[in-house]
Amino acid sequence: MWDKYPFIREEVAALEEYILEKFPREGEFLDLVSKNVINSGGKRLRPVLAILSAMFGDYSREKIFPVAAALETLHTATLIHDDIIDNAETRRGQPSVFSKHGINMAVYTGDYLLVKALLLLSEAGLPTEKLKDIAKAMEALCLGEVEQYLSRHRLITPREYLKRIMRKTGILLSASCALGAFVTGCPEEQVRLLGRFGMYFGTAFQIRDDLLDLEATDANAPEIGKPVVNDLKEGIVTIPVILAIRKNDTLREQVQNYFEGMGDVRNIVAGVMRSGGHEEARRLRDRYIDKCLHILEKLPSAEHRKVMEDSVLWLQEEVQPIPA
Amino acid sequence: MWDKYPFIREEVAALEEYILEKFPREGEFLDLVSKNVINSGGKRLRPVLAILSAMFGDYSREKIFPVAAALETLHTATLIHDDIIDNAETRRGQPSVFSKHGINMAVYTGDYLLVKALLLLSEAGLPTEKLKDIAKAMEALCLGEVEQYLSRHRLITPREYLKRIMRKTGILLSASCALGAFVTGCPEEQVRLLGRFGMYFGTAFQIRDDLLDLEATDANAPEIGKPVVNDLKEGIVTIPVILAIRKNDTLREQVQNYFEGMGDVRNIVAGVMRSGGHEEARRLRDRYIDKCLHILEKLPSAEHRKVMEDSVLWLQEEVQPIPA
Repeated sequence: MWDKYPFIREEVAALEEYILEKFPREGEFLDLVSKNVINSGGKRLRPVLAILSAMFGDYSREKIFPVAAALETLHTATLIHDDIIDNAETRRGQPSVFSKHGINMAVYTGDYLLVKALLLLSEAGLPTEKLKDIAKAMEALCLGEVEQYLSRHRLITPREYLKRIMRKTGILLSASCALGAFVTGCPEEQVRLLGRFGMYFGTAFQIRDDLLDLEATDANAPEIGKPVVNDLKEGIVTIPVILAIRKNDTLREQVQNYFEGMGDVRNIVAGVMRSGGHEEARRLRDRYIDKCLHILEKLPSAEHRKVMEDSVLWLQEEVQPIPA
Repeated sequence: MWDKYPFIREEVAALEEYILEKFPREGEFLDLVSKNVINSGGKRLRPVLAILSAMFGDYSREKIFPVAAALETLHTATLIHDDIIDNAETRRGQPSVFSKHGINMAVYTGDYLLVKALLLLSEAGLPTEKLKDIAKAMEALCLGEVEQYLSRHRLITPREYLKRIMRKTGILLSASCALGAFVTGCPEEQVRLLGRFGMYFGTAFQIRDDLLDLEATDANAPEIGKPVVNDLKEGIVTIPVILAIRKNDTLREQVQNYFEGMGDVRNIVAGVMRSGGHEEARRLRDRYIDKCLHILEKLPSAEHRKVMEDSVLWLQEEVQPIPA
């Protein structure tokens, strides 16, 4: 994803080195498993947004790497535990820790990475207030995940949806950007702006993810790396569905029936499409994309700002089905 | 356990109030579950040792409560995740989160409490160095748990055993005492001494726990709140067994066979007893008890020091079988 930007690619490679060095013990199974998971790729969205935000200030790896590494480690921990909840066989195209080593090792490895993130944060020498911001973001993430888990098979409102994804994705991305800007000494107003940018980015990102899940077919699913229409299958209504059933009672009933074990998920996907759910969701996503771009305009023009603009626009790209 | 000491009982009650206030949201399932687990009791060993250590300095609840609450919250988190690994139906005489709400909610609740502990620590305003000590203690705890998990059905040496229990129990208890003394401004030498006290206390505590597990019968098990000879059943050799098999090859073979599914655990318990495993383990425990008492002698005489001495001696008390 960052291949087009050599100066970012270089930072990401150095950061990955830096993270892997935090798991040096050959004989420790936890270090081995952690290293493998971290090595298995991923977009590195949180650390890269932190790094890009940090570039508005007096950038140095020394300042940003402990924070960026903590964010990625934290994110990896949540993925490992999520895979337990989702019974996920694969992650990033590799067998998940859960499927490879069992539930117990997945619980332990996630905990270990959470603790490692705390260790990295303690090395970042952050003031209490900022540490609290990250802890608050993690708290929101837990609350969001559990709210979603407990609301399976329930049709939520757009407002409930937005609250959920801000907790699940927005707040940590917001903290990533704000923290990145903070550690390199950006003025308070920039820290605040970048914090808002992260929140909007996260919201648009999640809507995009929802669209991908609905649009994924068996042909292009390997590209996304997860089963098709996974959300509905797990009993979770995503924004295209939520928006479509608002004015289509038949579809609402179909979804309810599906959650009770009746009907075919393909009919629902087709129904959402016909009711304009995809279109409306895209428009909602684009509203958040506009908010992101609007904030970037207020920040000094620079090469890294351009990368941020590009990554915002990337949220708009459609997945291309792989030709059969 | 602290009922004999009104001034400690009072601090514990106030601390419990303080912790419960950190989970105020009626509508949040995670707050509800967390509150219930914390309310279900426990010895509060880590926070009380932190409080007692803090009393050597300029004591105030304001200084010690965030740290003490973080330690208890952290400990509770590890218990909830341990219960997943151990398939434990009950904890402290109540259904475990795992058995009551399933694996998924147990994963989430443990994570949430870990994050809450971080939040409390960020409120404690600790210097980076001290935060790192706690993170290091948690890291050791994870490594110790996983080492034990992966070494199931393997006969380890006394040295390996001691390393394991220092990681699993000693280091966090050591950090609890040292941190308690630190936050109330004790001189560096006292902080260091209390840190060592915690490590020895934790070691003796774990050996006591091992003895209890072997000595527990169906009659007195409810008092301890877990199944009898749980450790051996889980494939874990504890110190009385480790010491007994050093000079009894027949017993060693019996244990190995038992781990392969042959023989009766009661014969092993009887064999360990006959080979003096219990006696030797008690002597080892007493060596650590002596180390604890020796350290306490170097600290100023005070009412709270007396409580610490009593709790060290409590480690020596034998469990009384409940009359049938």
